[in-house]
Amino acid sequence: MSRPEISSRGLETPASPIRKLTPYADEAKSRGVRVYHLNIGQPDIHTPREFFEAVKGFDGNVLSYNPSNGIPAMLESLEQYYHRCGLSHVTRKDIMVTTAGSEAILFSMMAVTSPGDEIIVFEPFYPNYNGFAKMAGVTLVPIASDPRNGYRLPDRETIESRITPKTRAILICSPNNPTGTVLTAAEMGIIKDLALEHGLFVLSDEVYREFVFEGSAVSILSFPELSEHAVICDSLSKRYSACGARIGSIVSKNAAVMETVLKFGQARLCPPTLEQIGSAAVVNTGSKYFKGMLDEYRKRRDVLYEGLLSIPGVMVKKPGGAFYMMVSFPVDDIEDFCRWLLSDFELEHETTMLAPGPGFYATKGKGKQEARIAYVLNVEDMKKAINVLSHGLSAYQSTS
Amino acid sequence: MSRPEISSRGLETPASPIRKLTPYADEAKSRGVRVYHLNIGQPDIHTPREFFEAVKGFDGNVLSYNPSNGIPAMLESLEQYYHRCGLSHVTRKDIMVTTAGSEAILFSMMAVTSPGDEIIVFEPFYPNYNGFAKMAGVTLVPIASDPRNGYRLPDRETIESRITPKTRAILICSPNNPTGTVLTAAEMGIIKDLALEHGLFVLSDEVYREFVFEGSAVSILSFPELSEHAVICDSLSKRYSACGARIGSIVSKNAAVMETVLKFGQARLCPPTLEQIGSAAVVNTGSKYFKGMLDEYRKRRDVLYEGLLSIPGVMVKKPGGAFYMMVSFPVDDIEDFCRWLLSDFELEHETTMLAPGPGFYATKGKGKQEARIAYVLNVEDMKKAINVLSHGLSAYQSTS
Repeated sequence: MSRPEISSRGLETPASPIRKLTPYADEAKSRGVRVYHLNIGQPDIHTPREFFEAVKGFDGNVLSYNPSNGIPAMLESLEQYYHRCGLSHVTRKDIMVTTAGSEAILFSMMAVTSPGDEIIVFEPFYPNYNGFAKMAGVTLVPIASDPRNGYRLPDRETIESRITPKTRAILICSPNNPTGTVLTAAEMGIIKDLALEHGLFVLSDEVYREFVFEGSAVSILSFPELSEHAVICDSLSKRYSACGARIGSIVSKNAAVMETVLKFGQARLCPPTLEQIGSAAVVNTGSKYFKGMLDEYRKRRDVLYEGLLSIPGVMVKKPGGAFYMMVSFPVDDIEDFCRWLLSDFELEHETTMLAPGPGFYATKGKGKQEARIAYVLNVEDMKKAINVLSHGLSAYQSTS
Repeated sequence: MSRPEISSRGLETPASPIRKLTPYADEAKSRGVRVYHLNIGQPDIHTPREFFEAVKGFDGNVLSYNPSNGIPAMLESLEQYYHRCGLSHVTRKDIMVTTAGSEAILFSMMAVTSPGDEIIVFEPFYPNYNGFAKMAGVTLVPIASDPRNGYRLPDRETIESRITPKTRAILICSPNNPTGTVLTAAEMGIIKDLALEHGLFVLSDEVYREFVFEGSAVSILSFPELSEHAVICDSLSKRYSACGARIGSIVSKNAAVMETVLKFGQARLCPPTLEQIGSAAVVNTGSKYFKGMLDEYRKRRDVLYEGLLSIPGVMVKKPGGAFYMMVSFPVDDIEDFCRWLLSDFELEHETTMLAPGPGFYATKGKGKQEARIAYVLNVEDMKKAINVLSHGLSAYQSTS
């Protein structure tokens, strides 16, 4: 008689570094302290009202299964959207609706790997890639980007040296979460060449596509040579401030990829219905929704950047996109500092919550001085949060 | 320069056997033929209006992320529901809301296995278990149940003989999809003993809990000895005719299991919001919703059963639950027969669609004379469908 044990897969899956300090934040709130949440990418921008109107217009009697690749209205909406993005060669058959970007990444990883295979990823990266890789039994091979030059990609040789017979894909994210860095055409060119020469897939997380403050982001699908290699993992969460809808997509011109992710999609039957109906309607907002949003985020970025520069010892480069900055702090153990801000510090009954850096790395020991800051608060609150952070840092330094 | 290839995981994942004849059905429809869908478990029963009212009552401006384990209202709703089911020891911390039963099964499998591990399952079984197992890199070890005795479990020794050092769990489903069989207390007792003696988890798919026509189903969580072993995979899809909502749950008293599935849950952030708000409201319908539904399904079952008995050569046992029957036909290749019904047959511009048996087996060559019939049509349509099927079978037999 014995007790069943959790699998090593389960044990090795990391808890979310973005959410793991939540109990400390809750405790602070219960003491009456206001917590500025700079830790999570939850925008305060309103979801387009077209979304809610469409949901409320649903007049069926039965909420029934729908197609595994998405409801026709949603596929049509996405097709129009990608055409507006300049990807005019994308047709409906190249698109599958997923239950958010999360499922898009998981299914893409699973389609191109078997357990034990490797995927190259650039550190720091979106921490949930770790979770998906563990779930899929895949090894992420991390290659560091450099904080000192704004987290640019390393050179071609450095990347190529990490390709092994087990490498199946390179996973990129531009504009980047957590660094905000937007890959240049030259960097995308390196990825393209390596994918072609080594027969690798490129999984391209493009959920922040619209969040570029100067110029624009290059989509992996804009390279015709990569039609068999490129897989876009996408999401409406940030683009339409609809994180709770859980609607995303996989886009690829590789028919075998689409056939494979559809098989995974059939196993889970279909994405949520009402949220698809809402999401399909936001295509009608065209591009006008983004303009105001982008102006707002640019303001926030600039306020955050200027504010951080004024804090002694803090190092940061101005990022070109998304709504995150990866910031270096003059502390030895960022986890301790972030926890301390919540449990031991307050400035006039206020404090702030950051996402500690180590969760954004796969390499042990890295990121111990960094934290990700999401600039998802309005300018007034952002200024207050920076002030709190600045006072917190000097108080922390004087205690240790 | 080489072309990237789909992984063996991707290639080995089966397409849905329930949906794969859909192109033939679509073709039949385009010829003006009405197709009675007996292939898919999509009930025609109305979703409780409380669901839609709650969704329409949402008055937020931002559809934001919500907790990875589910919104508080949904957890509370489920807690009350499980108490009404007689599982009074289930508290909120034992429950995680999932994106449908599909995710509940995938996450449970992943929590208890690493790639290469084995899970015992009884044939025939819900085909998507195959898909989830492939996604997780897990081997399903199938043990046949016997059509001739109504798909009862084999004896204890037969099951025990298939337990190996790699076995991590036994996966059961009662009331069963596709057979409709409800496990007896004695059968549950065998599963319990084996789990205790061999230190195995029991993953218990209980999504058809209410669909029992005589007596009631035994929940795996009703055995106090199994508190460390038992994991319920659950779904609101069938219970409230809300298949398109994609809301389900994992329930376990094993804290390590709940902690592990929560980590997977954090990776995918959260289940869909509006569908949770709707689902949370249906708890207010109490048990009254089920009573009428169950009477309706009992009628349908009896009509289908009597109808099938009248077709020469067809073999079927009257099942005690769910809304499926696994039926044996006097044909050599059920796939061919099912396809033929759609592509080559019609009776006064009508035909019918069944789910071929082989997809419900992991053992190659099995199920070639069986098909699953879902009695999800009203009695009138069911009678017509059976008549069409009866004529179709004799026409098919005379052509071959």
